[in-house]
Amino acid sequence: SSAPADRLELLRSFLQLCVDRYYVSPGETNSDLFQRGLSCSYGPLGTELRRNLLEQWWHSVTRDRGQVFGISTLNISQEQAGLRVVECEHVKQILDQQKSKEELIQEIQLLLQRSPAVRTNLLTGALQQFVPSLELVNRKLPFGLAETGLCFQPSSASGCSAEITQTSLVWFCSPRTSSQWLDHWTRQRLKWWKKFALSPSDFSSSEVPEQELEDAASRGVRILYRFPWGSETLETLWNRGNAELLREHKGARSKLQCRDGQKSVPHVVSISGNMDRGVMAFLSNSLQQLSREEGRQKLQQRKVLKLHPVLAPVKVALNIGRGPTVELRQVCGGLLQEFLEAKIFTWPGYLETVQTSAEQQSAKYDEMGVLFSVLISENTLENGLVQVRSRDTTIRETMHISELRNFLSRYISAAENI
Amino acid sequence: SSAPADRLELLRSFLQLCVDRYYVSPGETNSDLFQRGLSCSYGPLGTELRRNLLEQWWHSVTRDRGQVFGISTLNISQEQAGLRVVECEHVKQILDQQKSKEELIQEIQLLLQRSPAVRTNLLTGALQQFVPSLELVNRKLPFGLAETGLCFQPSSASGCSAEITQTSLVWFCSPRTSSQWLDHWTRQRLKWWKKFALSPSDFSSSEVPEQELEDAASRGVRILYRFPWGSETLETLWNRGNAELLREHKGARSKLQCRDGQKSVPHVVSISGNMDRGVMAFLSNSLQQLSREEGRQKLQQRKVLKLHPVLAPVKVALNIGRGPTVELRQVCGGLLQEFLEAKIFTWPGYLETVQTSAEQQSAKYDEMGVLFSVLISENTLENGLVQVRSRDTTIRETMHISELRNFLSRYISAAENI
Repeated sequence: SSAPADRLELLRSFLQLCVDRYYVSPGETNSDLFQRGLSCSYGPLGTELRRNLLEQWWHSVTRDRGQVFGISTLNISQEQAGLRVVECEHVKQILDQQKSKEELIQEIQLLLQRSPAVRTNLLTGALQQFVPSLELVNRKLPFGLAETGLCFQPSSASGCSAEITQTSLVWFCSPRTSSQWLDHWTRQRLKWWKKFALSPSDFSSSEVPEQELEDAASRGVRILYRFPWGSETLETLWNRGNAELLREHKGARSKLQCRDGQKSVPHVVSISGNMDRGVMAFLSNSLQQLSREEGRQKLQQRKVLKLHPVLAPVKVALNIGRGPTVELRQVCGGLLQEFLEAKIFTWPGYLETVQTSAEQQSAKYDEMGVLFSVLISENTLENGLVQVRSRDTTIRETMHISELRNFLSRYISAAENI
Repeated sequence: SSAPADRLELLRSFLQLCVDRYYVSPGETNSDLFQRGLSCSYGPLGTELRRNLLEQWWHSVTRDRGQVFGISTLNISQEQAGLRVVECEHVKQILDQQKSKEELIQEIQLLLQRSPAVRTNLLTGALQQFVPSLELVNRKLPFGLAETGLCFQPSSASGCSAEITQTSLVWFCSPRTSSQWLDHWTRQRLKWWKKFALSPSDFSSSEVPEQELEDAASRGVRILYRFPWGSETLETLWNRGNAELLREHKGARSKLQCRDGQKSVPHVVSISGNMDRGVMAFLSNSLQQLSREEGRQKLQQRKVLKLHPVLAPVKVALNIGRGPTVELRQVCGGLLQEFLEAKIFTWPGYLETVQTSAEQQSAKYDEMGVLFSVLISENTLENGLVQVRSRDTTIRETMHISELRNFLSRYISAAENI
């Protein structure tokens, strides 16, 4: 609805926030990769956000009634594929030889053939693992194989290859149920994306038009996120039939048949997601820009990354107020240790030496998406009381220092189980 | 101490166990990769074991007093490096052109130069992230950058490139303290490996002899595991000085200087581990072979994978005994759901349809390293009691079904905090 120039400005300021607040490493090329939904170099907060996202994906998919097994396949293989890893040294050796042009061509072709290929998706690995997995499930359908990992992308128009952190669930089911399973998994996946969203309506699913169907697929569904600057695909579900499975196992039908009433070669429903774009979608979705009038009618722009408590990288920041610095830092150090042992990602704000006002600090933490910030002051040394500020309510509460850990753990796990 | 033939037999039977019990996917090439300490295709149990191991590594390193930040850098880059990803299609296009030999050589060289390189270690990425990270720590030393990820290995004598799951902590400290930090991290890391070991004395550290030091390094330490068939390196620590850091940032000293009394360019201690070999080390270390005399002097060989409770992939297996199958399976299904929600990896043994004796089943679970197995029978339907067998004591206890989840959670978290 907004003009292209506005959207560009929106994108620019969003990317700047991600860089300033330790989600994405600085550098224009890096921001560009991030924006295109590709792996980029992440800062500490982006690294943790993607870890949390992958963890949630894994948990949601593998807990599905004991029928999904995690696998981990190789990135490089000797398969036919477009992208190959070659050693410069070997090519140089060939080029340096005093040989005829024909010999040269032949040797380079041979080298390419022998060079391992890098994967561009996780599907092939799962199809290969189908036969060894049959033992796990007593040849009974349906079941799934889950994997997350790095995949490479052939160079696009920009001429440069790229990498993506993919998630993949490959679901094997009887031919007559495959379309229902596609619907089932579409609902499940869309529910999952919406669960962590601040504004769930930005996530949607859409049937792939017939002319855009991939080779083997009879149906496809995309899960989309509506960025302020346009919609992008987060996850794609395909009803692939069994042609690829048969091809991967050289047509050995008897090896592939399962027990589902009629002996049949299962159909494949593939669900593959791009978690780098997922990171960007949740960051974009959680960004709230609030304008409010301050005391003397000064218009304040407040930006808050309202990431879901489970996804938010930093659950709590520790800061010191007035009082003896050495003692207060010691208290903070103890708390930090306690929280980290309890796997609560904690930000050591008390180590900062640059003077900032409480207001500036809160603004920074809001932009980082820090759930709670705790202020330890001389008061704490006297009576054990600390001030806890919530990102979402902006209210400051007083709490006893000994209650903090339980409060945080309970808050996060309550959010997880909603 | 044992003869080479014995050791070979030991290795062979160990690899077979890993394949049979869903740790490593079948296939000779795959077993070979695994045995060489390289990434292989893992089955569901191997996938989970490596996940657990990486999770423990991450937790142990990043909880270090808030001075270690996680990062996630790119695998491919435009850096100078030996391994490059090329598109076959592009090479073919060049070879197909009707050009002179000289032009051909030139074009191929140009293509190689423009092709992205894949990383062979995580060090370079961390060195690049040093400058953006300085803001996080107010230019104060020491601090560290942690990362885990896939790295490629140039082809060895066998002529084939390979991949490894590496862990990396790059520690930046003042020049005068670097040797102490190397000692500190050696102790920490060795303690970590031993913590999860059944037989901790198989893990050791050893100073790298001077003639084996890498280019930049003034000192090195290896953490070794003594496999029955020979010692192998799990992790390597180097005191690298600051030459590489300076080179990476083109000698811009002022950008790199930190506040540690005297303005100096920090020294780098690198700690990089091979978690694929780590998986193999813990599997090998946890394997107990017990011979015992049965009733009629029949010699029974019992193999148990006594993996640490935190690392063991399967925490509990659910099985059904005598009674109405449909109802018993329903009970199991409910438990499975409950356990998986609580993130307790559960094995759906009740889905198996092949008849096996209780003895055979226990033997299988012991070889899988399953911590507890639960038997649900008609008894359970009457009074809610189940039988719980422990892998480590082989004792069967009776317990109420409602206590199971708490019992398992407590057992695992107790083992974690020892």
